[in-house]
Amino acid sequence: MQQETPDPRDGIAFVGGRYMPLSEASVPILDRGFVRSDATYDVAHVWQGRIFRLDDHIERFFASMRGLRMSLPYDKAALTEILVECVRRSGLRDAYLQMTCTRGIPPRGTRDPRLCENRLYVFVQPFVWIANAEQQRQGLTMVVSSVARIPPDSVDPRIKNFHWLDLTMGIFEAYDRDALVAVLKGPDGTVTEGAGFNLFVVRDGRLATPESGVFEGMTRRTVLDFAGDLGLEIEVRPVLAEELAGADEVFITSTAGGIMPVTVVDGRILSNGRPGPVTGRVRDLYWARHDEGWRMTPIDYRD
Amino acid sequence: MQQETPDPRDGIAFVGGRYMPLSEASVPILDRGFVRSDATYDVAHVWQGRIFRLDDHIERFFASMRGLRMSLPYDKAALTEILVECVRRSGLRDAYLQMTCTRGIPPRGTRDPRLCENRLYVFVQPFVWIANAEQQRQGLTMVVSSVARIPPDSVDPRIKNFHWLDLTMGIFEAYDRDALVAVLKGPDGTVTEGAGFNLFVVRDGRLATPESGVFEGMTRRTVLDFAGDLGLEIEVRPVLAEELAGADEVFITSTAGGIMPVTVVDGRILSNGRPGPVTGRVRDLYWARHDEGWRMTPIDYRD
Repeated sequence: MQQETPDPRDGIAFVGGRYMPLSEASVPILDRGFVRSDATYDVAHVWQGRIFRLDDHIERFFASMRGLRMSLPYDKAALTEILVECVRRSGLRDAYLQMTCTRGIPPRGTRDPRLCENRLYVFVQPFVWIANAEQQRQGLTMVVSSVARIPPDSVDPRIKNFHWLDLTMGIFEAYDRDALVAVLKGPDGTVTEGAGFNLFVVRDGRLATPESGVFEGMTRRTVLDFAGDLGLEIEVRPVLAEELAGADEVFITSTAGGIMPVTVVDGRILSNGRPGPVTGRVRDLYWARHDEGWRMTPIDYRD
Repeated sequence: MQQETPDPRDGIAFVGGRYMPLSEASVPILDRGFVRSDATYDVAHVWQGRIFRLDDHIERFFASMRGLRMSLPYDKAALTEILVECVRRSGLRDAYLQMTCTRGIPPRGTRDPRLCENRLYVFVQPFVWIANAEQQRQGLTMVVSSVARIPPDSVDPRIKNFHWLDLTMGIFEAYDRDALVAVLKGPDGTVTEGAGFNLFVVRDGRLATPESGVFEGMTRRTVLDFAGDLGLEIEVRPVLAEELAGADEVFITSTAGGIMPVTVVDGRILSNGRPGPVTGRVRDLYWARHDEGWRMTPIDYRD
């Protein structure tokens, strides 16, 4: 029986030192990356055939590995080549590009993580956005979850990790309460982040985004980089849950969708219930910079 | 080129509805069980060809799945058959038997965990104990980690999960401080658990084990079940870190090794530095009950 050849546009992976269709890529069941979620990762996006802030993602990925005492037999240049090659082979122009380092498999009979050979898993797949185009036009509905974000004294949120059960149960809670996304609070009661996104509030033309207990996302960083261009004052500080209800605008930032307006929080409609002007300005500049090729690594798709 | 046939005694897995050598068992890279650690699991052990408390493990595994809103197309009887069959095929008499349920892969283009088909991964492998025979004879060295255990308001510890980065960083800290294991504290400063084990302290013949912020391990439960037989008073209550230093005895309990004495905590030698009499009595009864076949499911290894 002949199998159909997988379409590279469904995704390409680099696992165990070789390129393969994403549908064939897997992790050994004994890799601590699976059975102990002993892994770190980073995600860049490909937009119109170019990778956004690739060097910054790689820089952060290496910092995360150091934080978990992991290392790979690839330097930054070699990893860059692998990432670019995955995208090139896929032919994808708009995509999600993930690099993961796992602890690996302990030698037989041991549990010692120091004895593992760390492993690299890379894959590119078509974009999966947090909100679709219609949801982004209308604005997203959000809840402040009753689930607390895993605190920094347990797991450092700046090291991107797969410890998402709190975020996942937050998603279920959002759906139960007729919303699309959930933001979680930290131990001090301030808001932190949601499943794959950071949060900004706008009040009287001033912006704020949570300071701690969050992954410092690349889109969040990009908004902070744009503050000067936009003439906006952005504070990085603790943000109270009550500030969301009283905000003029709320938006979330994610590699999986960019800048996305939130118009309902905990069932309460913000302002006039429509995406606000500040969110619009940030969003427009984000995509304009993409079009201009700002911090973009172009892919040469020719064979 | 011909490959050697894998030895079934290296492990057998049941993945995607079929049995296979453990070395061939893997998880698709897009399964949320890997990329979001969206999974629950349970581990029983096989001792001299019999599975210990199999029904209790299966009962708890089903409760964990309900807690994460997961379900499988197998009832308890069907899962029992699969678990027993994995052990039978492996030929292993002493082994570690893991059942895992993952969220599965979201349909193309979505992020909705409700749309995933949950997946079962079972495997049996030779025992990997927390401490070897010599370490158990001498007593284990432990540190009270500076890393905090992920608190229950973030992730319910009674639902066995792979969110182990706190525990793993605790292991590294233990090694850095010339110890073998680490116990982590909860948000209130009381001790909780370590990587795969619960903890008991003994003082003036009375035992105590932490009440909350812990996975209620099967070996812990077994020790509580034995209290009457041993004529021991065991309190389930908050246990302060300071109690460890002042304890007559400390021991840990784990499916990966049973009852294991701790003789050094944070560099301080407990009592006379040797495993204590209460620990010895608990340990002896634990293995005696194993020999008697208490709550054991025998395996028929014949083809």
